[in-house]
Amino acid sequence: MTRTVYVNGDYLPEDQAKVSVFDRGFVMADGVYEVTSVLGGKLIDFGGHLARLKRSLEALQMRNPLSDDDYLAAHRRLVAENGVTDGMVYLQVTRGNPGDRDFAFPPEDTVPTVVMFTQNKPGLADNPAAKTGWKVITTEDLRWARRDIKTVQLLFPSLAKMEAKSKGADDAWLVEEGKVTEGTSNNAYIVKGGTIITRELSSDILHGITRAAVLRFAREAQMKVEERSFTVAEAQEADEAFITSASAFVMPVVSIDGAAIGDGTVGPVARRLREIYLEESVKAGV
Amino acid sequence: MTRTVYVNGDYLPEDQAKVSVFDRGFVMADGVYEVTSVLGGKLIDFGGHLARLKRSLEALQMRNPLSDDDYLAAHRRLVAENGVTDGMVYLQVTRGNPGDRDFAFPPEDTVPTVVMFTQNKPGLADNPAAKTGWKVITTEDLRWARRDIKTVQLLFPSLAKMEAKSKGADDAWLVEEGKVTEGTSNNAYIVKGGTIITRELSSDILHGITRAAVLRFAREAQMKVEERSFTVAEAQEADEAFITSASAFVMPVVSIDGAAIGDGTVGPVARRLREIYLEESVKAGV
Repeated sequence: MTRTVYVNGDYLPEDQAKVSVFDRGFVMADGVYEVTSVLGGKLIDFGGHLARLKRSLEALQMRNPLSDDDYLAAHRRLVAENGVTDGMVYLQVTRGNPGDRDFAFPPEDTVPTVVMFTQNKPGLADNPAAKTGWKVITTEDLRWARRDIKTVQLLFPSLAKMEAKSKGADDAWLVEEGKVTEGTSNNAYIVKGGTIITRELSSDILHGITRAAVLRFAREAQMKVEERSFTVAEAQEADEAFITSASAFVMPVVSIDGAAIGDGTVGPVARRLREIYLEESVKAGV
Repeated sequence: MTRTVYVNGDYLPEDQAKVSVFDRGFVMADGVYEVTSVLGGKLIDFGGHLARLKRSLEALQMRNPLSDDDYLAAHRRLVAENGVTDGMVYLQVTRGNPGDRDFAFPPEDTVPTVVMFTQNKPGLADNPAAKTGWKVITTEDLRWARRDIKTVQLLFPSLAKMEAKSKGADDAWLVEEGKVTEGTSNNAYIVKGGTIITRELSSDILHGITRAAVLRFAREAQMKVEERSFTVAEAQEADEAFITSASAFVMPVVSIDGAAIGDGTVGPVARRLREIYLEESVKAGV
């Protein structure tokens, strides 16, 4: 079965889902995106992803071409047509196709390009990796300075992911001025003496939708949370480490650059937060 | 007349020139590009652009899908079919369309995407701006750290170009740790006491093809060249300033952040280098 893909209002077979070579997303990486997980056919944290999409568009002075209802309807139609029970919906908005290439923005009336597609991931919430945890490496963070805007400028995260794989690891934690910023496509956390520590929000990191939810649940469960940056050495000496993202939810990290975290197995805080997040977010799914 | 555009071996009318939404260039900015000027129907510095393309591909472990002869033949065919006397040929190579989105690189046998199109610019070498010079502003350089790889991650240069336009200027010079790196899509120079000063090559700046040629011509003409970085204040106190790029050639800069450079008119060094560059590069055109 071929996937149905949304391109500018049309629902197309995936091999016909195309954009112009003059699209600003293709020639200039002038686009933003969101990924929403689907569990049991429901969209997880969809409101949060829409809110962040609008924040990204605004930061780039890009027009929001669709209403919240339109985005929701399109997500639901793709999930239904593609028979997705567990998986993701990817959404990308670019500054559109001005018909030619120029560093200057195209005229105001240029219609933004909107693309949405699904990825089917049966058993997404039962990922066996959550039982054994991820190994991560660290590498210098060479990305641009506005990581709070969720743009498609993902070449460096992709290179860092490949560096991790080449070293037998699952992901890379990015390091700037000696402090961890975040993972290639996730926020990074450590736990020390019962306190959850994660970098404070700024333009240095993505403002994770799953991050916001997990910190809220942690505080509701009376866990102590400290929002501040930490070094690789501090992380290696922590009791636990984990990451959060829209598609990995809460994923334990059991080693950093080969150094075991705690006893090298999944810790109780990460395990508990994953349970709470999955339970609560599925309950609130739309 | 509609342009003919090259997409993966096909020569298509521009409204049919499309790539998959799953192309790594669209969803991940995983692509590199070159722009070659055309003057009098000849390709300017084509060998230099091909050499840099291969350097960019290699830096990203991306396969080079075409031979030098193939690139040249395609450039010439587009120039001929589109009746370009003066203008540009744009070339982009991406890691291709793996059929789905993933941060990890696609399988080795994924075919890279190659796109080429022309832009018609009659009288490109006689740009009247070369007589009056550009006004530039300065702004903090927020790009990623590997500007020596010519990737399509051009969102920040585009934003900086728009900031310049909003302030009534022609371009922005980017500044890092108090020193000018380069312009939005060009290398930056000042002239003081007869010496041409431009930032040394490193991963901080693009290794301009026009830069290499202009510095060679300058040295051949017994002009003194110093390759080192300079501050905005030093630039504002210079005798002259200018930029070089493949499509602007040598373009004088007459003010920086509102401060006139020298007497605020085009200086003799920039004027002479522009003449030499145009003369020599047209002579060597292919």
